[in-house]
Amino acid sequence: MPVSRRPTYINMNEIERVHLEPQTGTGFELRRGQVLRVIDPQGEQVSDLMAFAREDFTEWLSSGRSIDYADTIYLSKGHTLYSNKSNPMLTIVEDTVGKHDFLLTPCSEEMFRILYDVDSGHPSCFSNLVMGLERFGIAPHQIPTTFNIFMNVSIAPTGKLTIGPPLSRAGDSIDLRAEMDLVIGLTACSAEKSNNFSFKPIDAIIFDEE
Amino acid sequence: MPVSRRPTYINMNEIERVHLEPQTGTGFELRRGQVLRVIDPQGEQVSDLMAFAREDFTEWLSSGRSIDYADTIYLSKGHTLYSNKSNPMLTIVEDTVGKHDFLLTPCSEEMFRILYDVDSGHPSCFSNLVMGLERFGIAPHQIPTTFNIFMNVSIAPTGKLTIGPPLSRAGDSIDLRAEMDLVIGLTACSAEKSNNFSFKPIDAIIFDEE
Repeated sequence: MPVSRRPTYINMNEIERVHLEPQTGTGFELRRGQVLRVIDPQGEQVSDLMAFAREDFTEWLSSGRSIDYADTIYLSKGHTLYSNKSNPMLTIVEDTVGKHDFLLTPCSEEMFRILYDVDSGHPSCFSNLVMGLERFGIAPHQIPTTFNIFMNVSIAPTGKLTIGPPLSRAGDSIDLRAEMDLVIGLTACSAEKSNNFSFKPIDAIIFDEE
Repeated sequence: MPVSRRPTYINMNEIERVHLEPQTGTGFELRRGQVLRVIDPQGEQVSDLMAFAREDFTEWLSSGRSIDYADTIYLSKGHTLYSNKSNPMLTIVEDTVGKHDFLLTPCSEEMFRILYDVDSGHPSCFSNLVMGLERFGIAPHQIPTTFNIFMNVSIAPTGKLTIGPPLSRAGDSIDLRAEMDLVIGLTACSAEKSNNFSFKPIDAIIFDEE
């Protein structure tokens, strides 16, 4: 896993900034060629990312195809995230952390109920993605497994999952270049365990490479 | 992983038998309470399974939710396969093999092109699932990561995947009980690497528990 903690872009044409308060999410467009930098400003925070083709929402980010083509469950710098139609959606062009989850669905009200016996009403990445994407006409059932940036999931040889605190430190980031016009959903995660029991914001910058 | 190689059902009311020739697939209904036994008659063969709620195709088998709730990537006897709406779809009530894949999408024409540089026209589980499910009105883009029965995928600590020959021997099987009315897609896998380079049939029996 790459551990360089200094992104290599010196000059960039900043287009837009996104600030996500703890336990919130949003949706926005990302044009082909634009780069989305997702930043963990305080460290140990997770950000769930979902992507749909701007022109056809039946084309969506596929964990299963991406993992297959990358030949690893830990996608990082140089790897491409593919759609369910096997088209490149996003390329990871920079990554100062190197470990992200691509196995699990976003935390959801049902997850908090099933795994933690928490009553409904807990904020969740799933409901925040639903709210962020609905203005584009994307329905809840269209949200599959997401790319869970900075989420630290390890797999024992037995298959058992261990969710540890994210490896991200304050200021760490990942840069994803859009390979097609996209609609992106992005969150500042709501799950206690994913964030070392401290909810924090997420920042994002959209820019053109110079 | 359980390694008992003798299913415990002695008496069962057989309802239907399905025989899949090598590199083929089919679709059928499975009613709540019915058990689907998927059998590897010759050993070292993979069978990709997909499930949709019979009454609402926006409810589909979710690898990400199932793995999260089982707390393991290797689902076996006693585990439940969940839908994207967090409802139980199938429970594994018997399993003589104990290792199946739930990370990867079905083999597809695009996969053979991207990973193996094989021209279009290679039979694939994806196209066989499409053909098996289209008569129910299920579209190709609705097929996500499948439950890949007997597929032997191991994950190194680095995240790298290794696809080995299935651990299934002739006559091995897995029993899945439907927890709701379902439409099932099922294949005899078309990928050389998944089957130790020898394509074989898959058998299935649908029965009621006595």
